[in-house]
Amino acid sequence: METNKNLRQGAIFGAGEINPYGQFFTGDTYLKLLADSPDGQVGIGTVDFEPGARNNWHIHHDGYQILLVTAGHGWYQEAGKPAQALKAGDVIVTREGVKHWHGAQADSWFEHIALTAGTPEWLEPVSDEWYQAL
Amino acid sequence: METNKNLRQGAIFGAGEINPYGQFFTGDTYLKLLADSPDGQVGIGTVDFEPGARNNWHIHHDGYQILLVTAGHGWYQEAGKPAQALKAGDVIVTREGVKHWHGAQADSWFEHIALTAGTPEWLEPVSDEWYQAL
Repeated sequence: METNKNLRQGAIFGAGEINPYGQFFTGDTYLKLLADSPDGQVGIGTVDFEPGARNNWHIHHDGYQILLVTAGHGWYQEAGKPAQALKAGDVIVTREGVKHWHGAQADSWFEHIALTAGTPEWLEPVSDEWYQAL
Repeated sequence: METNKNLRQGAIFGAGEINPYGQFFTGDTYLKLLADSPDGQVGIGTVDFEPGARNNWHIHHDGYQILLVTAGHGWYQEAGKPAQALKAGDVIVTREGVKHWHGAQADSWFEHIALTAGTPEWLEPVSDEWYQAL
């Protein structure tokens, strides 16, 4: 089991701020913006999740998201598919229009870099019942 | 001083292959491709440099490159500007048309994630005289 003792300093890219999109998340998460592509198409940031924290189901429209996992242990799930356990070094590509969520495992903090293009549509939370059944 | 003892396993994303673009580099480097964006516009990979290794001066045309430094100590330099020391957590955005190079410091291995859009134009090597004067 990994603790969240390093959560506020991050694994590599330093401390993030309290996630300004927190209304679309369950539990505490932190966001650090790293860069925007010069063409304005791709935003890059790191997200740190406390143990048990996760985002709502959501869809990326007119774009995509790529996750580069940098620390801890997490979950990624697309609607209609089994949840996939994530660890440092894993890479996830989410295509346009795919309903999904991602977040920490219950007993571990979790950190990923996210490259995001397009506009997210935020949907319902991942319920405690759903999450605890993983 | 950091050694290159972890170079072949990488900091987070695992071992890369001998860099297929090695003819445009001085010294030994390793490349691991992580993902391509679904729209085909951005390629993502990690590059590991042995101490003293660096790429040639080059320009990104019709695109850009973003470096996310994940381990070690390196250099980044744009033509006509001082070289900038890099460490884990640093982020560099290179815009279209800017002549530059990047690589390891002489006594440290170095690793970065690179997000690349467009086409690189490879130019002359960074000479030993230039590099050793840093």
